[in-house]
Amino acid sequence: MDLNSDLAEGFGRWTLGDDAALLDIVTSANVACGFHAGDPGAIRRTCEKAAENGVAIGAQVGYRDLAGFGRRFIDMDPVELIDDLIYQIGAVSGLARVVGTEVTYVKPHGALYNAIAEHEEQALAVIEAVRQYDPSLVVLGLAGSDWLGWAEQAGLRTVHEAFADRAYTPDGKLVSRRQPGAVLHDAQEIARRCLRIARGEPIEAIDGSQLVVRAGSICVHGDSPGAVGIAKEVRAALTAGGVGLKPFAPATVAVVN
Amino acid sequence: MDLNSDLAEGFGRWTLGDDAALLDIVTSANVACGFHAGDPGAIRRTCEKAAENGVAIGAQVGYRDLAGFGRRFIDMDPVELIDDLIYQIGAVSGLARVVGTEVTYVKPHGALYNAIAEHEEQALAVIEAVRQYDPSLVVLGLAGSDWLGWAEQAGLRTVHEAFADRAYTPDGKLVSRRQPGAVLHDAQEIARRCLRIARGEPIEAIDGSQLVVRAGSICVHGDSPGAVGIAKEVRAALTAGGVGLKPFAPATVAVVN
Amino acid sequence: MDLNSDLAEGFGRWTLGDDAALLDIVTSANVACGFHAGDPGAIRRTCEKAAENGVAIGAQVGYRDLAGFGRRFIDMDPVELIDDLIYQIGAVSGLARVVGTEVTYVKPHGALYNAIAEHEEQALAVIEAVRQYDPSLVVLGLAGSDWLGWAEQAGLRTVHEAFADRAYTPDGKLVSRRQPGAVLHDAQEIARRCLRIARGEPIEAIDGSQLVVRAGSICVHGDSPGAVGIAKEVRAALTAGGVGLKPFAPATVAVVN
Amino acid sequence: MDLNSDLAEGFGRWTLGDDAALLDIVTSANVACGFHAGDPGAIRRTCEKAAENGVAIGAQVGYRDLAGFGRRFIDMDPVELIDDLIYQIGAVSGLARVVGTEVTYVKPHGALYNAIAEHEEQALAVIEAVRQYDPSLVVLGLAGSDWLGWAEQAGLRTVHEAFADRAYTPDGKLVSRRQPGAVLHDAQEIARRCLRIARGEPIEAIDGSQLVVRAGSICVHGDSPGAVGIAKEVRAALTAGGVGLKPFAPATVAVVN
Repeated sequence: MDLNSDLAEGFGRWTLGDDAALLDIVTSANVACGFHAGDPGAIRRTCEKAAENGVAIGAQVGYRDLAGFGRRFIDMDPVELIDDLIYQIGAVSGLARVVGTEVTYVKPHGALYNAIAEHEEQALAVIEAVRQYDPSLVVLGLAGSDWLGWAEQAGLRTVHEAFADRAYTPDGKLVSRRQPGAVLHDAQEIARRCLRIARGEPIEAIDGSQLVVRAGSICVHGDSPGAVGIAKEVRAALTAGGVGLKPFAPATVAVVN
Repeated sequence: MDLNSDLAEGFGRWTLGDDAALLDIVTSANVACGFHAGDPGAIRRTCEKAAENGVAIGAQVGYRDLAGFGRRFIDMDPVELIDDLIYQIGAVSGLARVVGTEVTYVKPHGALYNAIAEHEEQALAVIEAVRQYDPSLVVLGLAGSDWLGWAEQAGLRTVHEAFADRAYTPDGKLVSRRQPGAVLHDAQEIARRCLRIARGEPIEAIDGSQLVVRAGSICVHGDSPGAVGIAKEVRAALTAGGVGLKPFAPATVAVVN
Repeated sequence: MDLNSDLAEGFGRWTLGDDAALLDIVTSANVACGFHAGDPGAIRRTCEKAAENGVAIGAQVGYRDLAGFGRRFIDMDPVELIDDLIYQIGAVSGLARVVGTEVTYVKPHGALYNAIAEHEEQALAVIEAVRQYDPSLVVLGLAGSDWLGWAEQAGLRTVHEAFADRAYTPDGKLVSRRQPGAVLHDAQEIARRCLRIARGEPIEAIDGSQLVVRAGSICVHGDSPGAVGIAKEVRAALTAGGVGLKPFAPATVAVVN
Repeated sequence: MDLNSDLAEGFGRWTLGDDAALLDIVTSANVACGFHAGDPGAIRRTCEKAAENGVAIGAQVGYRDLAGFGRRFIDMDPVELIDDLIYQIGAVSGLARVVGTEVTYVKPHGALYNAIAEHEEQALAVIEAVRQYDPSLVVLGLAGSDWLGWAEQAGLRTVHEAFADRAYTPDGKLVSRRQPGAVLHDAQEIARRCLRIARGEPIEAIDGSQLVVRAGSICVHGDSPGAVGIAKEVRAALTAGGVGLKPFAPATVAVVN
């Protein structure tokens, strides 16, 4: 199993989340690329520590929207989106390269992540950007999403992710954050669910029914002290439960220091 | 001899210069990287046509300053500058890659171009960024600049450039634009001077003395109809004078279409 | 009748349209506010010349999207939109003030202009922003739009605008630019239609039927030499036809020079 | 005496400092204007709470540099700087207006604050921007700065500020942050010094000599829990010492809720 988290999400004077703590917990780092968050220095430092820790680096691509943190859908031309995404992947790849490592996967962020579950043109733009840039890059998305199927048809390797702290509908979708019970807060309960997911065992959906979430990675958060604590708990539970943790897309280049 | 020009300097709805015309004239394209100009679509289209025409692609790196077009000195931390430059080179490299070509050189833009003639810390940051990203990239700068010497000491290959339409002081510096006679306007005179530079022959400095400008590339402009006309004249004069034109740093990857 | 046009749409090094020419033609200037176009210097210069020419100044508000020129719908929180719009109106008001004039109306731009024809929450945000900032400001929008009715219910004065060079559907909507015949190009035909609109006479809709477009302002463009020529023709036709031209919302403060 | 602090310095998803806590301590709020920090929502909320608490609102103007938080000198054209500053003052004034209050002073931020101590052209641009926008606005700057004298000659009212937690040279300048002892950390010592400054009594300079800092306002910080604690201590000491606290430039408009 893999644990992934959003990192390098500060910008200049502003920081967000405890990157250092997360990089000791996760096996894959979704590195913000500068369009919705992430300045070059933050990107580089995250890549550097990730490389030291054997954490894989993904390009956390998003809309060009610093003011909205990439959380607002932008109805942009898919052709322009392709180029925006390639620019972002290239930029992070450049900074990964100078610290002796590489980008091995792509994970869309925020509103783009949500949009491509429904918006076929933008989903195809994401797939096309990855395919054009480097078809050996893995794409990481919401377990069960249609677009991951399209990505596979386009020849890309995909990894499905589960969310550690989110409730699921009986058909395997995330319960909307606006509904009660959508977000779980109890670290031990979250850790137990993650262990079940990792073992392929069913978890309880929001209506009490049993649901198997097939996932190759679990997403944890680090933007609050509580979040880091939960992430630690998840890692500890998986390890204690005999689930090996390693990146789904490890770097193939060696770090030379 | 090589002819270079600044390209891809539009941003979104805004265009600047006649990129298509220039790409039929020059042998090296300084592609804006998005920090002071250049959106991902413009970068890609310029790289694409450059690749088709056998024009080499350089990263035209600059300060993060869209409002000032990179023409305002920013007294930034050299460590941050290194990362900003690597980000830019990586981003353009990504877009060059998807059209089957690559970045082969780096040319600082605007205020950064001018600053590094004097500002040693920023000059060393430029050199360090290139060295870290890919020491096989060539750096292109003002003929006779100290920083090109430092770049060579750091192991980089350098190319010195002359300006087609600028007057020179007797000691080989550019006459400040604020002084009368600093910019030449007569296309034929400009073309004649370029031919002399290309042949290693002396040109007339602003005070009437003779000066040899040793340059491996000549910079031409394309941001006005007149400028494109001058650039054509320069190319024609060089060709007619038996000066072969080719990039100083041709791409080593083949375009596969 | 009033003639309005989008002005101050450059940004830094980039210019767009012939502002000086337009300011001799129109009676109302929609001044870009810096979020999708318009730097402070361009805003000030446009306000200055507008004041000199007795041209009214409107805040051409839009989404924060320089890369997209405000032409991409952004699904933003209406509460945030209100504040973004007030910020823009305030900023342009500040620059208008120092040249001795004032903003007297607001015209949404690009994707926001189009969105509020359908997107009620964002339409109400526009209305609320104007109401909060200064309920004596007029709002200018597409003739026949529902949101102008809502603006009136909120106590705002509204002005409906017609487009000089656009074809209309039989029910008074603009024919989509993607359809053939959507944009008119013949200056004389355009001028004739504008005169008919100004007189309250029917024009021909795209299907040949007759349609009365009730408008207090006609929008002309200036982003190409042809566009300026058409704008001149429109003004000449209206004047020759005895239609008086004056701003629908003239400044009430005197310019003191 | 007045206590001022930098507020509204977040941007979108990113927060900075404890604005709510500071607004219960200070009498003047330097509100970031969006160019180096401060999104429209943050600006509005800060103005709203400031108005409720009777805290005066100043425009914390700076360079257009989100990535650098306005802390990097930009060698910009003073004419452009004037317009950039007016834009910022206007924008914050707009948001202050809708919550029933107003901007009553201007305080340059970061690198601009430091630059105008030496850079006469930019200092005059700041003065000119305020004079043009509204000559009744007060300017707040470093106690003893030459530019405050120039501002007075230009007819502006000025207020000199002391820094609660900074060491002073014998001639009344701030000790550079790079030198040991430049920043004081002991809350009680800081509070005692502030009380002496408020009473016009001498404090100890870095070399042990006695120095009177004549100031109409004391600047406190809020970007760390410790900083808020110090600010509280300063307020408590001044109040206990019989020093009345009120804004040097109170709003003259009434908040209507």
